[in-house]
Amino acid sequence: MSLLVVGSIALDSVETPFGSTADALGGSAVFFATAAVLLHPVQVVGVVGDDFPMDRLERMAKRGIDLAGVTRATGESFRWKGKYSYDLQNRETLETRLGVFADFTPEIPPQFRGAQHVFLGNIDPELQLSVLDQVDDPAFVACDTMNYWIQGKRDVLMELLRRVDVLLVNDAEARELSGDWNIYRAARWILRHGPRFVVVKQGEYGAVLVGADGIFYVPAYPLEQVFDPTGAGDSFAGGFMGHLAGSGDTSPENLRRAMVFGSAMGSFAVEEFSVRRFDELTPDEVRARVQAFSDLVRFDLPAMAEEA
Amino acid sequence: MSLLVVGSIALDSVETPFGSTADALGGSAVFFATAAVLLHPVQVVGVVGDDFPMDRLERMAKRGIDLAGVTRATGESFRWKGKYSYDLQNRETLETRLGVFADFTPEIPPQFRGAQHVFLGNIDPELQLSVLDQVDDPAFVACDTMNYWIQGKRDVLMELLRRVDVLLVNDAEARELSGDWNIYRAARWILRHGPRFVVVKQGEYGAVLVGADGIFYVPAYPLEQVFDPTGAGDSFAGGFMGHLAGSGDTSPENLRRAMVFGSAMGSFAVEEFSVRRFDELTPDEVRARVQAFSDLVRFDLPAMAEEA
Repeated sequence: MSLLVVGSIALDSVETPFGSTADALGGSAVFFATAAVLLHPVQVVGVVGDDFPMDRLERMAKRGIDLAGVTRATGESFRWKGKYSYDLQNRETLETRLGVFADFTPEIPPQFRGAQHVFLGNIDPELQLSVLDQVDDPAFVACDTMNYWIQGKRDVLMELLRRVDVLLVNDAEARELSGDWNIYRAARWILRHGPRFVVVKQGEYGAVLVGADGIFYVPAYPLEQVFDPTGAGDSFAGGFMGHLAGSGDTSPENLRRAMVFGSAMGSFAVEEFSVRRFDELTPDEVRARVQAFSDLVRFDLPAMAEEA
Repeated sequence: MSLLVVGSIALDSVETPFGSTADALGGSAVFFATAAVLLHPVQVVGVVGDDFPMDRLERMAKRGIDLAGVTRATGESFRWKGKYSYDLQNRETLETRLGVFADFTPEIPPQFRGAQHVFLGNIDPELQLSVLDQVDDPAFVACDTMNYWIQGKRDVLMELLRRVDVLLVNDAEARELSGDWNIYRAARWILRHGPRFVVVKQGEYGAVLVGADGIFYVPAYPLEQVFDPTGAGDSFAGGFMGHLAGSGDTSPENLRRAMVFGSAMGSFAVEEFSVRRFDELTPDEVRARVQAFSDLVRFDLPAMAEEA
């Protein structure tokens, strides 16, 4: 059950209260793939400039990430520069240089077109649609988006929503898309416009899965040290889709498990700059963290059952 | 196992995007007691002015709330006037008239002094300490506080913390008290200064219980209609302490259940103005909502167990 991601490959320069990094590996496809590959092989479609440090991509390839869909174009790589506030609650974009990403037109290599699980990272919804036109018959499609497209390409985005199984957005995006500040009503609104499921990410608090059959909440893993929040959402998506592709099961019950894998991967992402935490991460560590979520929310109601 | 609460009894005038109310029943002791009494009898100590509509108190008494500790003083009752933003995320205090509450000196009636479970609502920590000096030997003491006391009476508050079992605060208060913006580090800091447990309330997101033996997270109940957030925290405390007193069990496992009762009661509180939602609430409704939390966070990891 192959897993395909289409998204940005970037060089991030991030400043947090704990340090800074320059031209570190970043972008939605990178965070997604490095998280997901711990659970299932991943195929990546994206673009880099001719200045891109290719050894970084080689390291990704060594981990089992198939980069056959990454083209190297003439020009500068996509660069993002940002700075976080002292409590990591807010971030300011200092600079965005799209470079070759400005002309990115995803071309899905023939060997990727049979992908069963597809994640459309946060890019122009027209490009997201073009990806869906190029893949044969995916079993499960997830997509991300952002306020820029919600405001600027709403019609195309709505067309896209009719063709995806799950939309993963943060709470502000869910509110903006639906025009409703209550995230549960916002989620219902989104469900009426196409997707079977909505995942609303709430940053440091957790994430909620809303579907026709119910609501599932997974808290964020309780971290005493958060180093750099960049990429948490895409790493969440990587854990979520990696688990679904690895298990080949998209039942509502398994989507709940996928949420836990997503939250686990999001928590690893923020423990280091860039994707560094994933470099050293072992399957045992992933397993231990996923299992820790069971204890985090565990309770039983024996007395209730007796009274009832 | 008697349950005692000491706190404010107020007349609230609240404006939300959905309507407004004038001189409605409010205050920490009122929200706490009306929520807790659904689980266990409650004894209240507080003060009202001679202008207080006594029929409101009689209605509380009819529900099993023992108001023998409520004194009626000459002067105006405590009044609070506030306005919520369109999304209920922010509130502005328009007016606070302390009235007789300014001179409140809690006197615990003899028949209340054997209380086994005590909740110290958000009042001057000196008064909270004086309550502890008046009760015989409570098995479990919980307290609330706020930024005003954290800033103005820090030393007394720290003395109080050494004498309570659990501190219930919101995230901003935990941060301010500890001087640490990370709520898990903040909770550890608080644990080092006295309480065996800390509950950090996170409003619309949920609440976290931190103790020496672990962390438990309960999400907020997913409500599509929130009417008035006033009193949610005190209703949470009422559900939390009401369950502990009703079960007579303060084991870590039962504190987890108490968190769920707290979150359930907090969710009822915000569905109507004032304590109106509790007026009509049946034990079956409470039971159903508490049980709904099981489904909200339920997942299993059978595949993980096999792999491990």
